[in-house]
Amino acid sequence: MQTLYVELGDRRYPIFIGSKLNAQELLEPYIHGHQVMVVTNTTVAPLYLDHYVAALEASGKTVHTCILSDGEKYKDIEHLNLIFDALLEAGFNRDCTVLALGGGVIGDMAGFASASFQRGVYFVQVPTTLLSQVDSSVGGKTGINHPLGKNMIGAFQQPQVVLADMSQLSTLPPRELSAGLAEVIKYALLGDVEFLDWLEQHMEALVAGDETVLATAVYKSCAHKARIVASDEKEQGDRALLNLGHTFGHAIESYLGYGEWLHGEAVATGMVMAADLSFRMGWISESDLERTKKIILRANLPIVCPKIPLEEFLAYMAHDKKVLNGQLRLVLMKKLGQAVITRDFDVELMKQVIVANQH
Amino acid sequence: MQTLYVELGDRRYPIFIGSKLNAQELLEPYIHGHQVMVVTNTTVAPLYLDHYVAALEASGKTVHTCILSDGEKYKDIEHLNLIFDALLEAGFNRDCTVLALGGGVIGDMAGFASASFQRGVYFVQVPTTLLSQVDSSVGGKTGINHPLGKNMIGAFQQPQVVLADMSQLSTLPPRELSAGLAEVIKYALLGDVEFLDWLEQHMEALVAGDETVLATAVYKSCAHKARIVASDEKEQGDRALLNLGHTFGHAIESYLGYGEWLHGEAVATGMVMAADLSFRMGWISESDLERTKKIILRANLPIVCPKIPLEEFLAYMAHDKKVLNGQLRLVLMKKLGQAVITRDFDVELMKQVIVANQH
Ligand SMILES: NC(=O)c1ccc[n+]([C@@H]2O[C@H](COP(=O)([O-])OP(=O)(O)OC[C@H]3O[C@@H](n4cnc5c(N)ncnc54)[C@H](O)[C@@H]3O)[C@@H](O)[C@H]2O)c1
Ligand SMILES: NC(=O)c1ccc[n+]([C@@H]2O[C@H](COP(=O)([O-])OP(=O)(O)OC[C@H]3O[C@@H](n4cnc5c(N)ncnc54)[C@H](O)[C@@H]3O)[C@@H](O)[C@H]2O)c1
Ligand SMILES: [Zn+2]
Ligand SMILES: [Zn+2]
Repeated sequence: MQTLYVELGDRRYPIFIGSKLNAQELLEPYIHGHQVMVVTNTTVAPLYLDHYVAALEASGKTVHTCILSDGEKYKDIEHLNLIFDALLEAGFNRDCTVLALGGGVIGDMAGFASASFQRGVYFVQVPTTLLSQVDSSVGGKTGINHPLGKNMIGAFQQPQVVLADMSQLSTLPPRELSAGLAEVIKYALLGDVEFLDWLEQHMEALVAGDETVLATAVYKSCAHKARIVASDEKEQGDRALLNLGHTFGHAIESYLGYGEWLHGEAVATGMVMAADLSFRMGWISESDLERTKKIILRANLPIVCPKIPLEEFLAYMAHDKKVLNGQLRLVLMKKLGQAVITRDFDVELMKQVIVANQH
Repeated sequence: MQTLYVELGDRRYPIFIGSKLNAQELLEPYIHGHQVMVVTNTTVAPLYLDHYVAALEASGKTVHTCILSDGEKYKDIEHLNLIFDALLEAGFNRDCTVLALGGGVIGDMAGFASASFQRGVYFVQVPTTLLSQVDSSVGGKTGINHPLGKNMIGAFQQPQVVLADMSQLSTLPPRELSAGLAEVIKYALLGDVEFLDWLEQHMEALVAGDETVLATAVYKSCAHKARIVASDEKEQGDRALLNLGHTFGHAIESYLGYGEWLHGEAVATGMVMAADLSFRMGWISESDLERTKKIILRANLPIVCPKIPLEEFLAYMAHDKKVLNGQLRLVLMKKLGQAVITRDFDVELMKQVIVANQH
């Protein structure tokens, strides 16, 4: 087992990463009070809920559960309210813990509920998708969607502890595993060429679900996100590096309609576009671009997107909230493994890139 | 005009208190970005909305409005969502301000919406009831009700500025003014016997709506709340002093059903009960008790409550969330104008007090 501390002063918390972790032993020191509400969904509950309920009860906790419908489309205020219903029906007071057991959807909803119930109770994350382990475990963002925008309503809420157990990834659909790998590859491309070398050596094992190798990838990814987030808590500067591939990806997701492509898939193709533009700007070499495409392909992720009319693609890119105020800013690569946030790119080359990387 | 600063480090903010305040001049320096959503209700909108919209537009702001139904029963998640709808339909981004124009219901809802929209935008309070001016302007509590409990869901959200204009109290129903005076009297009884002297000298003017005298009462009240809240941000100790009269009052409100008596009316009778128990414990004199009753009566507030079976009264008292963990704690007076939080009172005397102060 590896432990990574997210350094947030008096809200410092550990991420435990490993396989078949001892939930009782690891969680017990971080659970205040005796009431725990485990929030999960109908897919994850039959797989892992009993295990965590037993671990918490072995620590003497009073455990209640709240099982939500599975899907991004239920990440709304109505389903958030079901968590409040459960907390109040169980008679929970301020000294309780909300534990998220599931992917990013459950983590975001349970996290926001814990931030708002009685104006803030304790929160614990048990992310069960690769994407949620490498992304939502760090940064404290929680929230829900609104019909007019994703993640529009929420709170910053840090967990007491995160438990990332690789053995739970064995039941994850391969497509979801690959979507998580897109974000892992992102950390390499934006800031760590040695990690890219390592990924090239271990991609087969990752895709096959090798738990030891996955644990290393999760550790490295969380460490990168923690470093970037810590250097820029207010999301003004470096934090935008985490959007490598996301502005292009956002356009793809929006055009196709959310749910058609997974977020990680759109980000994967978006990273190819960012790399291609970096290449056309003369910043990275053709072989760097090929390396980028190859690692993404080997993660079973798409490197081209369906045909999208250029004007529509551009309109969706401009809608990305990172570029709302003023000019379009993109995260591009000055070198392989060294991303920058920049306005200084050739818009004509960008248009060529969009057209070139479609079916 | 008087200015009181609530000292919260880098979230320090001013409360401007006076009559016919210059809204444009006072608000302009505290409004970030150019988008402002004014949240108000159907009662307050016809009275004051135009004035504030004009003041904000004179500062070059883009102003949208969200007019909610009037009433505590609409302080729920559904009506909260109407504020999010309005913000998103207006296309507001993170750099916007939500301005609450109304009483405590509007302040609590708009405050929570501002804390959650895009994970937190700017908030400005224009409290238009005496109760909201002397109570919710300080402390940063915001939130909504749930069918299973009041104020169960919310956030701590500090405003950028509070503008308390006494001239707006002229349209307030007299019963609402008196309800606000209950909280004003509370500050005197819990910690400032000189303020009690002052109230005794000025109660006629307060009840008559004299704006100069009201401004002083608001200033003193906010200063007391700010002092107590600052000394106890986490609500573990001294902050509970603010509950003088509230545990008894809570029982009255719960038994009668919320909406029957105003909160301030229940608190008024609750303070009489607290004073009576303090007297029976031998801590304050009979004339202190009489002074307490008299000032409450002069504010046109009730000093006895309808007949409530003792067992039910006690059960509701025990439900008060301040006493959930373990033994009943009460705020009583060791001396007139000096409250303490204590478990050391005679339960039999408490029962006598409840029965004695009913019709
Ligand atoms: N808070 C943040 O910082 C942050 C960061 C990235 C993404 N997100 C959010 O996360 C969400 C996406 O997260 P996600 O990709 O985890 O999606 P998800 O939560 O929808 O999970 C994907 C699917 O896998 C299932 N699943 C989860 N764990 C499983 C397991 N161990 N075995 C089998 N099936 C399992 C889920 O039920 C779901 O059907 C989005 O809503 C996004 O906005 C938040
Ligand atoms: N956040 C806090 O710290 C805090 C503190 C105390 C109370 N509260 C909350 O505040 C609420 C009670 O506040 P309230 O007493 O102001 O009630 P309220 O907001 O319901 O206002 C009382 C009535 O007066 C009307 N009104 C408001 N201003 C007016 C004006 N200038 N002229 C004419 N009518 C006017 C309102 O429309 C309403 O009908 C409760 O929900 C309570 O939980 C919050
Ligand atoms: Zn992403
Ligand atoms: Zn009160």
